[in-house]
Amino acid sequence: MEGFRFSTEVSVRFAETDAQAVAHNSVYLVWLEVARVEYLARFDGGYPALRARGVEALTLETYVRYLAPARFADRVRIYARCGAIRGARFRFEYSLELGSRPIAEAWTAHACVDAQALRPIRMPRPLVEAITKAET
Amino acid sequence: MEGFRFSTEVSVRFAETDAQAVAHNSVYLVWLEVARVEYLARFDGGYPALRARGVEALTLETYVRYLAPARFADRVRIYARCGAIRGARFRFEYSLELGSRPIAEAWTAHACVDAQALRPIRMPRPLVEAITKAET
Amino acid sequence: MEGFRFSTEVSVRFAETDAQAVAHNSVYLVWLEVARVEYLARFDGGYPALRARGVEALTLETYVRYLAPARFADRVRIYARCGAIRGARFRFEYSLELGSRPIAEAWTAHACVDAQALRPIRMPRPLVEAITKAET
Amino acid sequence: MEGFRFSTEVSVRFAETDAQAVAHNSVYLVWLEVARVEYLARFDGGYPALRARGVEALTLETYVRYLAPARFADRVRIYARCGAIRGARFRFEYSLELGSRPIAEAWTAHACVDAQALRPIRMPRPLVEAITKAET
Repeated sequence: MEGFRFSTEVSVRFAETDAQAVAHNSVYLVWLEVARVEYLARFDGGYPALRARGVEALTLETYVRYLAPARFADRVRIYARCGAIRGARFRFEYSLELGSRPIAEAWTAHACVDAQALRPIRMPRPLVEAITKAET
Repeated sequence: MEGFRFSTEVSVRFAETDAQAVAHNSVYLVWLEVARVEYLARFDGGYPALRARGVEALTLETYVRYLAPARFADRVRIYARCGAIRGARFRFEYSLELGSRPIAEAWTAHACVDAQALRPIRMPRPLVEAITKAET
Repeated sequence: MEGFRFSTEVSVRFAETDAQAVAHNSVYLVWLEVARVEYLARFDGGYPALRARGVEALTLETYVRYLAPARFADRVRIYARCGAIRGARFRFEYSLELGSRPIAEAWTAHACVDAQALRPIRMPRPLVEAITKAET
Repeated sequence: MEGFRFSTEVSVRFAETDAQAVAHNSVYLVWLEVARVEYLARFDGGYPALRARGVEALTLETYVRYLAPARFADRVRIYARCGAIRGARFRFEYSLELGSRPIAEAWTAHACVDAQALRPIRMPRPLVEAITKAET
């Protein structure tokens, strides 16, 4: 997938399907989070380490465009990239594919906050640098 | 809520919270669907009746902007309106409030399809007329 | 429902159905929790008040027997009673009905713990007394 | 794990945690299903192939005993075995471990049914034989 250097895969769980026999629209947001967590896991402890240091990442916005359905046991590849880190804020973009066919596009916007006061704090510099290096 | 003639309420389930002790971002899409189903339930059998007639509604796009968290047992009021019905396509807009404080804004885009062939079909005219009347 | 003095109702959400077009087996555990929360809500602040006082309720065991399916938009009545409170431990029993037809039976076992140390603590006496009074 | 010849692993998703910062009790039923699906995937097309042949597997009973919590990003190993196949009915047993520490025990009971009429039908003989061979 052009423009993406990271991807991961999920297998559609039976519990994730609905009475239309396709993965429910809300499940895509769970998958995007799985992809973010695995994306960050490559950097120094990843998201659990961030949380252990008292940094939480809030989700500010989510957008998904559904192009084609995913069905039980389908293996969905999620391409993800992190861009536009500005202070506390950052943004992820995604492309979901089944085989080589795109089935969804998405983006999510986030902010780092102090886990106690929930006030915005800059994403830790080493993480910014590691992500920037990984994406360029 | 100005501009909305319909609203419904959900109580945040414990299972819907996450380790940040707030309702998980994916749960909002479930709530929006609950609101759509109750919105349509006022019209001639609602969504189950549509499905019984062989009409499915697909979700094409979802967007949520999260403004403030919702916590366990919070009662969230969901304002919803249906607009921009064009042939098979329609769109819902939402505002979510806790007390009188907005906690999220959202919209979703949909299309009616034939349940067998999954080809786009116009929303049944009586439903279009009933919705148009209800919204104006 | 004989032997039950409390009941509540849930409407099957579309997101709760699966590709067999019935409510997924895992969703019943969410509904049982909804019933427990509403059961306790009648007593002095309920479960949120317990949590605010530093008491958490852990789930130790769950059992569900599925008798008949529940489908989208079905209104499921959940009968619940709390019995066998012994120190930190307590147990809930449930019967789920659709119309007057039983669709599931269930029980869950729990323990009260101190929210900090997660050590077992007795259920607060006023709550024990209120529940005992309500059940007899 | 003694007595189990099959296991698979799930990583606790952030969406699967609750406000106690542990995986919610209902999520275990989703994991058990993931384990069953992967268990059956080793046999001639697995569960999707069964469904394609018009055989559905119903869940009749579920039981989980929770011994210790699982937290975000924990890798939970699920040991599963299929036993007691009698006509249409079969049963799975599970042990869940974190590292080498058991965190839950579970069993589920199922029946094969004809997907159209939902009447019980024997589990297809080749599958019974393959499972019996795998388990002994």
